[in-house]
Amino acid sequence: MEKKDTRTEIIRIGTELISRQGYTATGIDLVLKEAGVPKGSFYHYFKSKEEFGLAVIELSAGYYGQRILALLQDRALSPLGRIRKLLDGSLERLSQEQCSKGCLIGNLGQEMADQNERFRARLDEVFADWKQMLAACLREAQECGELAAGADVDALASFILSGWEGSILRAKVMKSAQPLQDFIQVLFSATLR
Amino acid sequence: MEKKDTRTEIIRIGTELISRQGYTATGIDLVLKEAGVPKGSFYHYFKSKEEFGLAVIELSAGYYGQRILALLQDRALSPLGRIRKLLDGSLERLSQEQCSKGCLIGNLGQEMADQNERFRARLDEVFADWKQMLAACLREAQECGELAAGADVDALASFILSGWEGSILRAKVMKSAQPLQDFIQVLFSATLR
Repeated sequence: MEKKDTRTEIIRIGTELISRQGYTATGIDLVLKEAGVPKGSFYHYFKSKEEFGLAVIELSAGYYGQRILALLQDRALSPLGRIRKLLDGSLERLSQEQCSKGCLIGNLGQEMADQNERFRARLDEVFADWKQMLAACLREAQECGELAAGADVDALASFILSGWEGSILRAKVMKSAQPLQDFIQVLFSATLR
Repeated sequence: MEKKDTRTEIIRIGTELISRQGYTATGIDLVLKEAGVPKGSFYHYFKSKEEFGLAVIELSAGYYGQRILALLQDRALSPLGRIRKLLDGSLERLSQEQCSKGCLIGNLGQEMADQNERFRARLDEVFADWKQMLAACLREAQECGELAAGADVDALASFILSGWEGSILRAKVMKSAQPLQDFIQVLFSATLR
């Protein structure tokens, strides 16, 4: 493999391992071993474990950011229909993965926000982006009359992001998707009406 | 100190350290050092690091369980008024601690649910207890007409617990209490009306 491909493969394996066991518990040696890269060549690809961790965040931020944006701008559905599809898709993935791993951004936020300021600042930006995408979609919902004109869309977007992250966390602890089902049900039957 | 007091002090220090840096990153040696207990005497107090971790969970489960129950059964307030006071109190503590640490039960759930089945099972019970307490209070709200008779109180209790945990997580990442403020505002102005 070329250097760039090997780097990408290390990040991919790192994402999988960090999702399962966290950043601190993920040793560089294991990542290299699983990626089939010779031990000791890590610094050929990354300046430090921190740079590697930031690259793992970048991969997920890019992947989820694109996915969320594509769904929330899908004009084939009504604005609230798009948010519903986003959350239903999250529920499907959670079930497929037997409610393990959870959300990498939320996991690293929980683990690293008080430990590493560069991680915290970047994770904060990722959450802020997702919140903005939700707020823009809620604004469209207001414009087409799907959501009350007086609703505070920024607070509502923040509320949805918190409930989404919290229910994924609870699902991981319960090993059941029920918390995310409850979140979606109450959100659309009581909050967004 | 007597053995029992020393054990309690080790658990107290352990709670503080695990809240800040997680379970895996918290070495037993540091806990003993901060507790002023001779290195090497750990197994005098705990069979294993796992037993120590479970004791840390027990301390928080007991403390928060009692606190939540006392607030949610306080007949001086209306049922929804009690939930509001519980969340406002959480917001106050979060601000006092500069949005660091977060919720120990949520933190350990995030970190350990896929790593240790005994931890996961106990954390699951703790969340289930909190959810039951919220559901009982919401049922009282229904009985006194504060909440619509048709509301699904179990789903609603689950929804509140997820939003609470998720907004504490986001506050930790943002280093701002805004997510918990948003959660409380939307919950009482839109969801529980």
